[in-house]
Amino acid sequence: MTAALRAEVLARFPGARADDDALARARTDRSGTPGSADPLAVVRAGSVDEVRAVLAWAHEQRVPVVPRGAGTGLAGGAVADGALVLDVSGMRRIVHVDPVEEVAVVEPGVLTADLDAAAAEHGLMYAPDPASAAISTIGGNIATNAGGMRCVKHGVTRDAVLGLEVVLADGRLLRTGRATAKGVVGYDLTALLVGSEGTLGVVVGATLRLRPRPHVGGTVLATYPDVETAARACSRVGAARLRPSLLELIDAATLAAVADHTGTTALASAGAAVVAQTDGADAPTAAAELTRIVEVLRDGADTLEQDDDPARADELLTARRLALPAVEARGHALIEDICVPRARLAEAVRGIERIAAETGVPIYTFAHAGDGNLHPIVSWPRDAGASGAQRPAAVDDAAGRIFELAVALGGTLSGEHGVGTLKRAYLGLELDADALAVQRAVKAALDPRGILNPGKAI
Amino acid sequence: MTAALRAEVLARFPGARADDDALARARTDRSGTPGSADPLAVVRAGSVDEVRAVLAWAHEQRVPVVPRGAGTGLAGGAVADGALVLDVSGMRRIVHVDPVEEVAVVEPGVLTADLDAAAAEHGLMYAPDPASAAISTIGGNIATNAGGMRCVKHGVTRDAVLGLEVVLADGRLLRTGRATAKGVVGYDLTALLVGSEGTLGVVVGATLRLRPRPHVGGTVLATYPDVETAARACSRVGAARLRPSLLELIDAATLAAVADHTGTTALASAGAAVVAQTDGADAPTAAAELTRIVEVLRDGADTLEQDDDPARADELLTARRLALPAVEARGHALIEDICVPRARLAEAVRGIERIAAETGVPIYTFAHAGDGNLHPIVSWPRDAGASGAQRPAAVDDAAGRIFELAVALGGTLSGEHGVGTLKRAYLGLELDADALAVQRAVKAALDPRGILNPGKAI
Repeated sequence: MTAALRAEVLARFPGARADDDALARARTDRSGTPGSADPLAVVRAGSVDEVRAVLAWAHEQRVPVVPRGAGTGLAGGAVADGALVLDVSGMRRIVHVDPVEEVAVVEPGVLTADLDAAAAEHGLMYAPDPASAAISTIGGNIATNAGGMRCVKHGVTRDAVLGLEVVLADGRLLRTGRATAKGVVGYDLTALLVGSEGTLGVVVGATLRLRPRPHVGGTVLATYPDVETAARACSRVGAARLRPSLLELIDAATLAAVADHTGTTALASAGAAVVAQTDGADAPTAAAELTRIVEVLRDGADTLEQDDDPARADELLTARRLALPAVEARGHALIEDICVPRARLAEAVRGIERIAAETGVPIYTFAHAGDGNLHPIVSWPRDAGASGAQRPAAVDDAAGRIFELAVALGGTLSGEHGVGTLKRAYLGLELDADALAVQRAVKAALDPRGILNPGKAI
Repeated sequence: MTAALRAEVLARFPGARADDDALARARTDRSGTPGSADPLAVVRAGSVDEVRAVLAWAHEQRVPVVPRGAGTGLAGGAVADGALVLDVSGMRRIVHVDPVEEVAVVEPGVLTADLDAAAAEHGLMYAPDPASAAISTIGGNIATNAGGMRCVKHGVTRDAVLGLEVVLADGRLLRTGRATAKGVVGYDLTALLVGSEGTLGVVVGATLRLRPRPHVGGTVLATYPDVETAARACSRVGAARLRPSLLELIDAATLAAVADHTGTTALASAGAAVVAQTDGADAPTAAAELTRIVEVLRDGADTLEQDDDPARADELLTARRLALPAVEARGHALIEDICVPRARLAEAVRGIERIAAETGVPIYTFAHAGDGNLHPIVSWPRDAGASGAQRPAAVDDAAGRIFELAVALGGTLSGEHGVGTLKRAYLGLELDADALAVQRAVKAALDPRGILNPGKAI
């Protein structure tokens, strides 16, 4: 059956491949979660018409389809599980950037950082900046409603998407949204599709809002004796109604890992660190806001370093940027993504430390503190198995407890990575039966045969 | 049949009324569009449980229900047409304002201006500011995804809604969204419901995002010989990457009406006027941005007045604030709401002038220029009939041509008022058959019996 179907796909679609290499690559994503079976095949689509043809055929044949961009997702959303993989990463044209309307029209395979660079030529920026911006695609960012560090001030992907071109499960082409700054005609299908993780349609084009590119003010890095003091400092920034363009918190375990990784000792013994940056319509404004943030962060700090030179703005961010590489140098990493009310940040970090102690699994936490969005990285040794398939049970136990903690603190399972396959078993913690029923009714309305990314997101 | 049903409603629900006064008031809304028949009855609900009971009964009996707040809608969205009117304007508690998380939890009948005032006590603001803020409710604002003047910088209602409590057509209570700054679990039903004009559910509670209340910088009012020069000045503000907190354009016809209405002659003969205001994290920043906007607006201006005193910030806005009252003093007014790409603003104003000339109907236009969102006010004499029922055919003809113009310029039928009943016949101009089919599939998924606000929005 699979062999016959596979042969049909290869014969029918010019961009189709089913060699071992293509199948192995498409079987998993950056989460490391292995699919239960090789994909049926991988079709690299080069045009909207090719995407439509693949979906029309798959709908007709009731073949499950997994849309895929760069495969950098962290929740298993692109894991194939025997499905036909529809790879749109080759559709990577920036169709145009309109500096007057402050919009860009792009294909889904455009890398996020490339779009931001194109916007910068016009004094604009594409605001969402997931850590993966250099390797992840706009289509994938839309599928997961990606966030990033500067979204604390400038918004997440949903805030940047004005309209979409989406191929529906049966191959119809749906245009949503608009090219204007505002619009309220019809239901907001654009927002419904953003974050739907490929379960409602395949994004083949997007009209994106750009924003004036602000001037960077400067950066401040402060260390504190403990996470409570650091979190209180972050809370005071908000209470003073200041708006840093990023506000990050790094816990002691992560600081120690970064110190190991870089061979520096400066932050090795700190209880926690906070990094903030400002931006503004002009450099003096941004610099003035940094000064006020520095005043607020100084209270309770053990050390505080400040750099007002925009050219060196990222130097004080090094510890934050190296957090994940440093943790990954120690072993396998399961990257989690809970979000809690801002005031519960310290409780969340302490709760995660408790979970690490109880399960015996090392967990490293850094957070977009301004959003209450924590990334606890659950770690296990490489010799426990080369791939995520051999993830020890204690790691999943720890992850499950982290989800329970998030919900107990009034938060959510995922701030910006999505549910994918990894968190699906925990959806019931956050969504009650009626909410799940409505989600599934919407899914059935758009994809009645359930062929789009089955087993993901909802 | 109606009499028996009405008697049942009156017997069953304590908040039910069917006296002539209650029925007449609920038959129309601020648009003046009369319903085709008196409402079945009006139930003033005082609690979530009452809303659930009404909808469960109506679903069972297949009785159409029109949700209603303050009845200030401009598109006929609350017109009753024989339906049961479910009035939630009495549910008006601000449940709490949390200054740390910067959120408010409110009931749907809270007046928008009251929420903003409550936020101000904590140095926060509720950003969306429809012109009706003093008389319209949050529930109605959510139903239409209301905008306003300051949304050019601070976002529309959708951007301010973090989560909703919604009673579904069958009486189930759906909780959407979250209390955290970010979250991507499940489809974004919150955004789907915002702007759905009461056709998918009845909003009974909302968690709203507040923002730091900015300092006002000052205001500038400039006049120009013609609308093209004025629109170019507005475009230059955007091109300079400046971000006024409001940027409004007023056409010559409106300026003449305001001059008549107020007995002042200052602006009577101007070709067009532009008003801008700035705000910022502190007063000097906001004042500095005003200075730069003044420089940009000065080029081509006939006159320019500037006031840097925040206490008098609204004085130069008088002409804009009085625009609608001045036009309404001349006759009946059909308030339209198209949105076009910013660069097409002058073309839109000229196109509307042409439509006025061709149809012989006076049309007055003012615009949220920074968003490309125009409000053409189509006017007809009071002696043509006391109510909108006798609206001359030429008025509807003019409105239809305005919609065609908007779409021809790459724009939309409605920037912030919604579709309601008034624009429903024109939906096909903007949404193709596939888009309409998807909208209706979503509607059927949430309201399979079609009882919620039938004949509206989609």
